[in-house]
Amino acid sequence: MRLAELSERSGVSIATIKYYLREGLLPPGRRVSATTAEYDEGHLRRLRLVRAMIQVGQVPVARVRKVLEHVDDESLGRTMRLGAALWALPHQPRPSDDKGLGDGGGGGGGEGGDDGGEDEATTAARAEVDQLLRTLGWSTARELGELSPVHRSLVEAVATLARLGYPWDAELMAPYAQLMHQVAVRDLDFVETFPSEAEKVETAVAATILFQPVLKALHRLAQEEEAARRYGLQ
Amino acid sequence: MRLAELSERSGVSIATIKYYLREGLLPPGRRVSATTAEYDEGHLRRLRLVRAMIQVGQVPVARVRKVLEHVDDESLGRTMRLGAALWALPHQPRPSDDKGLGDGGGGGGGEGGDDGGEDEATTAARAEVDQLLRTLGWSTARELGELSPVHRSLVEAVATLARLGYPWDAELMAPYAQLMHQVAVRDLDFVETFPSEAEKVETAVAATILFQPVLKALHRLAQEEEAARRYGLQ
Repeated sequence: MRLAELSERSGVSIATIKYYLREGLLPPGRRVSATTAEYDEGHLRRLRLVRAMIQVGQVPVARVRKVLEHVDDESLGRTMRLGAALWALPHQPRPSDDKGLGDGGGGGGGEGGDDGGEDEATTAARAEVDQLLRTLGWSTARELGELSPVHRSLVEAVATLARLGYPWDAELMAPYAQLMHQVAVRDLDFVETFPSEAEKVETAVAATILFQPVLKALHRLAQEEEAARRYGLQ
Repeated sequence: MRLAELSERSGVSIATIKYYLREGLLPPGRRVSATTAEYDEGHLRRLRLVRAMIQVGQVPVARVRKVLEHVDDESLGRTMRLGAALWALPHQPRPSDDKGLGDGGGGGGGEGGDDGGEDEATTAARAEVDQLLRTLGWSTARELGELSPVHRSLVEAVATLARLGYPWDAELMAPYAQLMHQVAVRDLDFVETFPSEAEKVETAVAATILFQPVLKALHRLAQEEEAARRYGLQ
C-alpha cells in the first residue's frame, strides 16, 4: 500500500508517519519509484505498536527505538527477545517527594527517609520479595533477581508501602502473585495465538502497555461489585 | 502525642504536617495549651493516607480533600462511603495525543479519530463492556453503569485499544475480569481485618492507590517467569 493508505488504515497522519520514518521507528517502505514507496501489513502493525507505546505508554521516542531493536533481534530466543523488549520499557518511577510543600530534607526522619540510596525499607523489601519468590517457586525470577528491572520495581514498590506505614510481607503478597500468574498465563496464551514470531513479540509488547489500563479498570469495577455484594447499595 | 512525635512516627516533616493542617487534610489536634496540641493514632493514620495519595497516587490536594470528606461521611453506608471516596480519586486519563509531532488534526481519519466526543470506538466499547457485565453477572456494575467513573474508565480503555487496532471483546475480557474479581475479594477480605469502620474505609482508599504498583510489578514478574518456563532462558 502507499503512504496515504497506510495513514488511512492506521489512523496516523502522514506527517507523523514521516516523522517515525525519519526517527527510525518505522522501517522504510520498498521504493517503487523516485517519489513513492510501498508499505505492507508489517508496517501497519509496527505503526500501531509505536503509537501504543507513545500514546498510551508515554514511552519517549529514544526508548521506543531501543525496545524495537530488541523486538527485531532475531538472534535471541523468544524469552530473551521478549524480556529484552519489555525490560527496555520504562518501569515504576520512584514516588515523587513532597515537592513545594516546604519539606526541607526529611523532617522527622523515621520511616520516611527520602534519600535515593539503599535504606532499611529497601533491604527489608528485598528480603520479603525473595521470600515470596521462594514460596511461589518462581525460580527464574529468583535467578535473575535484580538483573531484572521488573524485580527492582517490585522491591521498590514494596519498600514504598513500608515507608508509608503499610508494610506488606511475603505471606500477604503470595495469593496476589498467584492470581497475577494466572493473568500472565492468559497473556502468553493470547500472544501465542498470533502466527509469526515477529507478531508474537510485537503483541507481547503492545499487550504489556495496553492491557494495563483495562486490568486496572476491571480491578476497580470488581471492587465496586464485590463491595455492593457484601454491604449492599445504600 | 505532640507534633514532633507525630512527625517522627510518620516520617513527614513538621512543615508538611502544618501545611496539611492548614489545608484541612488533617483534622486539628486537641488543644492542650495556647501553643501546643495533642495528636492521636487517628492523626497518624490520616497522615499516612494523605501522604500515600499525594506521593504515590499523585492526587492533587483539592482532590485529596474531597476524598477525605467522603471517607469521613458517617451518614453513608459502607459501600457508598467506600464508593464515593474511590470515585473521587482521579481516573484513567485519556491517552495523550501525538503532541508536537506535527499531527495537525487527525490526518488519515480511519480508526484514529482524536476528537473528544463520542465516536464509533466508544459506542462499540460500551456495548462490549455491557456484554461483559452480563456474562459475568455483575449486576451492580450494570445497574450503576456510567454513573460510575470506573465504568467510564473501562469503556475508555477498551475504546483506546480498538482505536489503536487492538480490539478487545467481552469474550477476551471475561477471564481477566474473573481473575480481577478474585483480586478484589482478597482486597476486601484484607480491608475487613481492620477493627473500626474508619480504618476500614481509610485502608480501602490507601489500598486502591498503593497496591496498584505492587500488582503491576507482580504481573510483569509473572510474565517473565511464565515466558522462561515456556521458552527457556536463552
